Amino acid sequence: MALNPQYDAIGKGFVQQYYTLFDDPAQRPNLVNMYNVETSFMTFEGVQLQGAVKIMEKLNSLAFQKIGRIITAVDSQPMFDGGVLINVLGQLQTDDDLPHAYFQTFVLKPIANSFYVEHDMFRLALHNV
Amino acid sequence: MALNPQYDAIGKGFVQQYYTLFDDPAQRPNLVNMYNVETSFMTFEGVQLQGAVKIMEKLNSLAFQKIGRIITAVDSQPMFDGGVLINVLGQLQTDDDLPHAYFQTFVLKPIANSFYVEHDMFRLALHNV
Repeated sequence: MALNPQYDAIGKGFVQQYYTLFDDPAQRPNLVNMYNVETSFMTFEGVQLQGAVKIMEKLNSLAFQKIGRIITAVDSQPMFDGGVLINVLGQLQTDDDLPHAYFQTFVLKPIANSFYVEHDMFRLALHNV
Repeated sequence: MALNPQYDAIGKGFVQQYYTLFDDPAQRPNLVNMYNVETSFMTFEGVQLQGAVKIMEKLNSLAFQKIGRIITAVDSQPMFDGGVLINVLGQLQTDDDLPHAYFQTFVLKPIANSFYVEHDMFRLALHNV
């Protein structure tokens, strides 16, 4: 399998596209198109979910409306199946809560001329809670 | 391809084994056995390296001797090639520096009856620096 030489641009472009949808409650339901109905995994604060339906149930259950987000770093690596591994470090403020550091990992899997999210892991950088 | 049902135990076991070697300067050179000579990628604070030799040059260049480490969370997911995706959230104190949150992502690739690290990404949770 070939490494995709565009992995860095793909990673940065995906992150921008994903958070544009995520951060707008009106657009968030469209994230369903980024996940596979069976083979996508999400681990959200330690809770593991499989498949687009369960993942969207989780995302739609998030109660906050307003999201302030600052991306500190996006690291990407090419994978040997043509996919891309992406790590995001950022800061997140929901509604009027204090801002927190967070990190999120995506594994993009190639499909036709595009990608879907095969793996998604999200953690706020909260310790000793 | 089959998902490995032991992914969670594999993830936790790997993380313990990896950091036992990493945190002891005398044992750190043994980490070379965890990487492939050609197909392993590391991104260390945004610097990308490929192959066990370059990865070990980086790890051996780290000047600190004393590492205090507290693991807050290890999240693992099974991958469709039999591998395991692992995310670590923790706190790290090197020598007499202040402790910092960090996160590290590993993708373990199956080989014979074991695994090697195909992807490794490390970031301290430092913002606006």
